[in-house]
Amino acid sequence: MKRAGMEQTGTDKLKIEGKNAVTEAVRAGRTFEKILIEKESKDRALSSLAKEAIEQGIMVRFEPKSRLDFLSETKNHQGVIGLLSAFRYYEPEDLLKEAGDRNEPPFLILLDGIEDPHNFGAILRTAHQAGAHGVIITKTRAAGLNATAAKTSAGTFNYVKVARVPNLVRTMEDLKEKGLWIIGADMGGASMYRTDFTGAVGLVIGNEGKGLSRLVKEHLDLVTSIPMKGKIDSLNASVAAGILMYEVVRQRSMKGQ
Amino acid sequence: MKRAGMEQTGTDKLKIEGKNAVTEAVRAGRTFEKILIEKESKDRALSSLAKEAIEQGIMVRFEPKSRLDFLSETKNHQGVIGLLSAFRYYEPEDLLKEAGDRNEPPFLILLDGIEDPHNFGAILRTAHQAGAHGVIITKTRAAGLNATAAKTSAGTFNYVKVARVPNLVRTMEDLKEKGLWIIGADMGGASMYRTDFTGAVGLVIGNEGKGLSRLVKEHLDLVTSIPMKGKIDSLNASVAAGILMYEVVRQRSMKGQ
Repeated sequence: MKRAGMEQTGTDKLKIEGKNAVTEAVRAGRTFEKILIEKESKDRALSSLAKEAIEQGIMVRFEPKSRLDFLSETKNHQGVIGLLSAFRYYEPEDLLKEAGDRNEPPFLILLDGIEDPHNFGAILRTAHQAGAHGVIITKTRAAGLNATAAKTSAGTFNYVKVARVPNLVRTMEDLKEKGLWIIGADMGGASMYRTDFTGAVGLVIGNEGKGLSRLVKEHLDLVTSIPMKGKIDSLNASVAAGILMYEVVRQRSMKGQ
Repeated sequence: MKRAGMEQTGTDKLKIEGKNAVTEAVRAGRTFEKILIEKESKDRALSSLAKEAIEQGIMVRFEPKSRLDFLSETKNHQGVIGLLSAFRYYEPEDLLKEAGDRNEPPFLILLDGIEDPHNFGAILRTAHQAGAHGVIITKTRAAGLNATAAKTSAGTFNYVKVARVPNLVRTMEDLKEKGLWIIGADMGGASMYRTDFTGAVGLVIGNEGKGLSRLVKEHLDLVTSIPMKGKIDSLNASVAAGILMYEVVRQRSMKGQ
């Protein structure tokens, strides 16, 4: 029972849309069910994408624009939609293994109920660019990997490992046992400039409107805060996550990690 | 001719939507043409907002939901739309005066063609929270203050000064003459951790897809970069802006500014 949070795995269908997103996924070697390309289009980028995909053995179908419009989730498919055969979520242990493989102290991002797929996609992108070892999301009340998140991530969802767990608090406890410090971003904590992020850390980001949930707060090792000089008390969730992740990058680079 | 970039001023109509955004604007003392509230709604937050507005002498009209749906730009009005009588853009000199009034070295954000109102709103919010003295945008090819930007800014558009100029390069040259260092965010510059942001600075953020325009690049004093560990070369524009603004905050706080 106790380690259930670490054992969750699962697959999901994922549509990806737009020239850059699909090209990036083809080059990353993703397994596609098929790629649909707008039949009437004269866009050369689409023909060369089709060629590249076919050379990799991916099934490519040319379909009328109306069909792509109907299937599109983002309403901005740019003439191409890729259907991944199945998207595999990782387990938190895979993320820790990634840290071990890179010989770095673990740096995980835990999302406590991020709902907006744009925020989720932007966080995936920043996590990848900041060198985090993965992102942990919950199964309920949270944005999962859909076409909008994949597009906003600018293709980085292909590279950053995402784990999806049934119970974030249980996963936090499991990670603590493995030596991670679980640090939540919230008002009233120590300034992030005085929080030590150079050890093994799990950084918890709260929901867009409500912030961290009460139970999650109760299970944190530390609370860290972004200094705010303005009249309100928060930032956009993906901006706040980015600022915090890059404070981790800064502190680790100062230590030569 | 030479100082034309500094003399631009102008007004625009602005719709603001949603309970928090309108409440924030009422409390900030904005001048409203009127506030429309959904007649059928039983939301108590709306009745108390109406009361507060009426007490401040603002005209409040109760209208059918269909009317608000029709007028809404964000499609998420939550039962209230405020029409500001006119939104006044500031001039770059007003932003410098703000720095002088606060007795701080100028810290301005220049946007080189940010197009997405969500990004613009998130940047306004971060600029306010990071204590920047204002944001400069261009008149063409750029997101201005509309209902979506106002909402994404979480009400901070009421507090952060926004200047709109016809020609960003000319404004950059004017600001240089006033002693500012104009620093652009782009690939291939020095790491932001080794860029000195403690003096008078104007930080230039590029367009979502294209980055900084060629002419802007040619007129920069310095290029600064966010270190990237991933497989692509950029971040979401509002996330990148946030990370850079908070590097300014960090360096200034270390110097006791």
